Amino acid sequence: MALPVVDFWFDFASTYSYPAAMRIRALARRGGAAVRFRPFLLGPIFAAQGWNTSPFNLFVAKGRNMWRDLERICADLALPFRRPEAFPQNSLLAARVALVGLRDGWGEEFCPAVYRAEFGDGRRIDEAETLAAILADLKVEPAAALTAAQTSDIKESLRSQTAEAQRIGIFGAPSFTTTDGELFWGNDRLESALAWAKRAP
Amino acid sequence: MALPVVDFWFDFASTYSYPAAMRIRALARRGGAAVRFRPFLLGPIFAAQGWNTSPFNLFVAKGRNMWRDLERICADLALPFRRPEAFPQNSLLAARVALVGLRDGWGEEFCPAVYRAEFGDGRRIDEAETLAAILADLKVEPAAALTAAQTSDIKESLRSQTAEAQRIGIFGAPSFTTTDGELFWGNDRLESALAWAKRAP
Repeated sequence: MALPVVDFWFDFASTYSYPAAMRIRALARRGGAAVRFRPFLLGPIFAAQGWNTSPFNLFVAKGRNMWRDLERICADLALPFRRPEAFPQNSLLAARVALVGLRDGWGEEFCPAVYRAEFGDGRRIDEAETLAAILADLKVEPAAALTAAQTSDIKESLRSQTAEAQRIGIFGAPSFTTTDGELFWGNDRLESALAWAKRAP
Repeated sequence: MALPVVDFWFDFASTYSYPAAMRIRALARRGGAAVRFRPFLLGPIFAAQGWNTSPFNLFVAKGRNMWRDLERICADLALPFRRPEAFPQNSLLAARVALVGLRDGWGEEFCPAVYRAEFGDGRRIDEAETLAAILADLKVEPAAALTAAQTSDIKESLRSQTAEAQRIGIFGAPSFTTTDGELFWGNDRLESALAWAKRAP
């Protein structure tokens, strides 16, 4: 029998997607589910809600608590945490490179590595150099991957993935969807999404 | 040795405060912590963020997911769930009555009963009749409690509690704070807050 599938929707600018990205593969394996990595861009979705930046910047008390909460969560999970100076970071290039990787077989290693660089080491993931270093660590030829990321196929793929996210009601990241149409929002709903996928028909 | 204390901040209009209110006393007892019930009003805090109603009404996709999420959470906890027609409900009178009850010894039974009426049975908790029926069930004389709720002492107590919530950075409900100044937001942070309180100095 085929494994139940959970779609993992994330934007590389999203803070709570970091612990989700670090946990999801092991949790899914243990839970007998398959995961599809679905990078998308929150920007157009936030813009449709009238926001021109992260709600964590727009709503100061909420943002302050988010950083502290993320720090506590990382401590509990023994994940490195370092708040990057720039937030949110432009995630366009990283998302395109991720799509190349998900097509070519190294995407599921690339994605957690980007999050770890960004929120574990506080690095800039909106710069091609950082992505190139991550790719090199994964034994992927950086120049080829970065060139592939700028092809119209990949650009269109990210656009249509973002449009699909918006169409199915995604409003934040990380989000998890199941094949029977349930939508779970937030790192703290990952376990619920996997449990739901397992009992879905 | 005194038990560690967790402050439980809630507004009766808040949906996710329902499962928190139903769970907190048993979880705290099991976890060896004491809970202080701190009703407050989200209205002034939302207004300071430029919102004139619940963000679940302002942001439609988020609101849609919240109701479904709450339904799933209630199913998991075997709590009754019925979406009230009006949302958010004016929680001013219920909060004042709760403060009377917390002063007079029946508040910790009253608060979960209000949430259950509102989100378990879909009732109006902004009407004195509903509160009176809840009070009668608890063997509290409704007229006396409703009269006490309109005294200047109680009104001032709610105002100062709301001001304190805002001062310590509370931006949503439920929230949990510990005596060493940690703030946890959301029903899904209740266990973390209790664990934190236990290991705090």
